[in-house]
Amino acid sequence: MDDALVPPGDEPRCPVDITLAALGGRWTPLVLRDFLRRDRATYTELSAALPALSDKVLSDKVLSDRLAQLTRVGVIERHRIPGWPPRVRYELTGLGRALEPVVRGMWEWGTARRDASA
Amino acid sequence: MDDALVPPGDEPRCPVDITLAALGGRWTPLVLRDFLRRDRATYTELSAALPALSDKVLSDKVLSDRLAQLTRVGVIERHRIPGWPPRVRYELTGLGRALEPVVRGMWEWGTARRDASA
Repeated sequence: MDDALVPPGDEPRCPVDITLAALGGRWTPLVLRDFLRRDRATYTELSAALPALSDKVLSDKVLSDRLAQLTRVGVIERHRIPGWPPRVRYELTGLGRALEPVVRGMWEWGTARRDASA
Repeated sequence: MDDALVPPGDEPRCPVDITLAALGGRWTPLVLRDFLRRDRATYTELSAALPALSDKVLSDKVLSDRLAQLTRVGVIERHRIPGWPPRVRYELTGLGRALEPVVRGMWEWGTARRDASA
């Protein structure tokens, strides 16, 4: 961490806050885990991999939001698949792959934290 | 990450979300960095170490909130210093120390992310 404060806008400047912002939000870690496992996926594949929810519409909204978020921060890239009907595939980037040890460390600490309070 | 969804309550169950919740919030990384450097600190010491803000009242409020948050999740412990006037010292716990490599990984990824978009 450097001495930069988080400015009032949406773009944090402290690197730790940048990472927190990239991973924050409901289901973000779950969606990211899926990409770390398979590198690329279509919307349909991701939707099937996410836990079944009673509210399918809400589920689609959240998944769309997460894909937009991860694309915006450069963790995944959106590619059109040529042909008809038009389809889109999302692929993990090098920056996204670099998140793997980070997320693993966070998973391990969170597990230790949970066990400590059990 | 395991398959647990984040429940509607305040206590996330996915370990990654637990870590995100522990580190989230304005200034949390900065306050934590200070503890990783010095292991223990009084409120006055922390207040002096934080970047000067024009609004001192807001600054005190945020720092109090962060100390309460980090205490609640077990990263620091609150100790009374015997004597008069009553004083309080906060000390990093073992669980808090274990956050060091995690936060370092997050810092490195956030730096790479920032440089990639510069």
